[in-house]
Amino acid sequence: MWTMPPTDSVLHVLSFIAVAAQSMTAALAAGRRKMDWAGVCMLGAITALGGGTIRDVLLGHYPLLWVAHPIYLAIAGVAALVTILLARLVHRLNVAFLVLDAIGLVVFTMAGCDVAWQVDASLPIVIVSGMITGCAGGVLRDILCNEVPLLFRSELYASVSVVTGLFYATAFGLEPNPQLWTLLTFALGLSLRLLAIRYKWEMPKFVFNGEER
Amino acid sequence: MWTMPPTDSVLHVLSFIAVAAQSMTAALAAGRRKMDWAGVCMLGAITALGGGTIRDVLLGHYPLLWVAHPIYLAIAGVAALVTILLARLVHRLNVAFLVLDAIGLVVFTMAGCDVAWQVDASLPIVIVSGMITGCAGGVLRDILCNEVPLLFRSELYASVSVVTGLFYATAFGLEPNPQLWTLLTFALGLSLRLLAIRYKWEMPKFVFNGEER
Amino acid sequence: MWTMPPTDSVLHVLSFIAVAAQSMTAALAAGRRKMDWAGVCMLGAITALGGGTIRDVLLGHYPLLWVAHPIYLAIAGVAALVTILLARLVHRLNVAFLVLDAIGLVVFTMAGCDVAWQVDASLPIVIVSGMITGCAGGVLRDILCNEVPLLFRSELYASVSVVTGLFYATAFGLEPNPQLWTLLTFALGLSLRLLAIRYKWEMPKFVFNGEER
Repeated sequence: MWTMPPTDSVLHVLSFIAVAAQSMTAALAAGRRKMDWAGVCMLGAITALGGGTIRDVLLGHYPLLWVAHPIYLAIAGVAALVTILLARLVHRLNVAFLVLDAIGLVVFTMAGCDVAWQVDASLPIVIVSGMITGCAGGVLRDILCNEVPLLFRSELYASVSVVTGLFYATAFGLEPNPQLWTLLTFALGLSLRLLAIRYKWEMPKFVFNGEER
Repeated sequence: MWTMPPTDSVLHVLSFIAVAAQSMTAALAAGRRKMDWAGVCMLGAITALGGGTIRDVLLGHYPLLWVAHPIYLAIAGVAALVTILLARLVHRLNVAFLVLDAIGLVVFTMAGCDVAWQVDASLPIVIVSGMITGCAGGVLRDILCNEVPLLFRSELYASVSVVTGLFYATAFGLEPNPQLWTLLTFALGLSLRLLAIRYKWEMPKFVFNGEER
Repeated sequence: MWTMPPTDSVLHVLSFIAVAAQSMTAALAAGRRKMDWAGVCMLGAITALGGGTIRDVLLGHYPLLWVAHPIYLAIAGVAALVTILLARLVHRLNVAFLVLDAIGLVVFTMAGCDVAWQVDASLPIVIVSGMITGCAGGVLRDILCNEVPLLFRSELYASVSVVTGLFYATAFGLEPNPQLWTLLTFALGLSLRLLAIRYKWEMPKFVFNGEER
């Protein structure tokens, strides 16, 4: 069949960064809706950990990461609170944030593939699992902020996740050694996402004006 | 106690049609919100498979259908893409769609009852399981399109599902042979739904103008 | 380690009251959106039982309460229908409702702590479990009513749940006898919540006006 590289300990460290970055972007969204401090923390934690949670619930993969390791909840909560304190500074670091968020997308996607691979899922489900892990947290954030999810409307976000997952799961038949494989996937995913932001790559949109049923 | 007819292989074929039909109606809704192609596919798949997914998660019934058989994901995704290509045509086929959607409601309801029955749920839960399977996908679609779910506001949709499930689970004490039973349920549910659309049957509405707490 | 008092049978009775109260407040919200009767019942049941359902799904704690005991579904549904009939009266009983809703918050929080404690969760997860059980139903209600959840924006609601859970799980080191412990937690939580309503205690808000990314 097909194999995947083992989870790297570097991935582990990157996952803390990813959780913090996604919680901070969610906190900024919370601030735009004038949520209170508790709401900011909750939205941050739900966004940062929601993708992995939905994946685990769909795959029946228990216990959930943050139930087994509540430190993830703490990281997300603290990152959200820090965002409140440093909002002006955080905002000026917009570019740094986009990079951190992109790292989050790629790292979460790889982690999601790993989990599906551990439960012996088929290749399509491994890729879907990566995509859910990378993208579903942002969808929850937008639902809770009462907006049509950005994921469905703009930018190459889900697509980057799918390409990343596809490469991670198959290495396109190259079969390099595991460390190189992980590194290549990370570089590919991050480059794709940053290029997509820089050059405003977008999928074509489907615009339909028929009346409601 | 009470028994239910075995799942028919006809039901199996009808379930493919139902998945495609629900994905296509979701794709039209996505087009009204100017989603991109990836978003259209995702909304289609979530709508078509979301009801069964929620049911399985609530009943702890793993693995999920589309995890075990990713072909369902492919059907939903392809149906959504076809809708993009044929939007004008699809729109003109409005009546055909309403019929397909009604078939979906009835087939999903029966499939949902089957699953609950397999896990030895009690009669009320069998009916609720059918209703969730038939209706929850549309609720997810409306949440993701940022609207109050149509299900809660209009038409006999959930009610048709409940009556269909009740008949399917009990045959109202008639106990015909299984094939006839399945057929009768299908005919009953489909007729009810189409009559409800044709004559605009609606539940009474609860209108309350008290101020917010 | 740390221990928690056994669930009291009084808690059991209070949980019926809590389910009914939360279903009734949801029914009023449904009436403001002109939902039909079936929608009112569904919104009531989802609000009243949604918190515990999300908790159980996240903890992998099956079967769900309402699947094992469909009587809870019936209580929520009947309470919602009664609200339709008595809407004017119910509205006049605003203060009684706030008290019942506060009882619901505290009772659900304690029940959520109990469940997490039964599955040997760590202290932070016990408290989060209590908070999810107490608060998530209202978040589902607001999502389905197409609003930014009240929970994230106003009043001490989640915070009361956290303090209640923290006291319930640790008794702050006092270790009284179980009945007294349960009673003290109940009195503490209820007082906090009612004081928060009476004196309009609020968390500071995070207001951020940076443009969207």
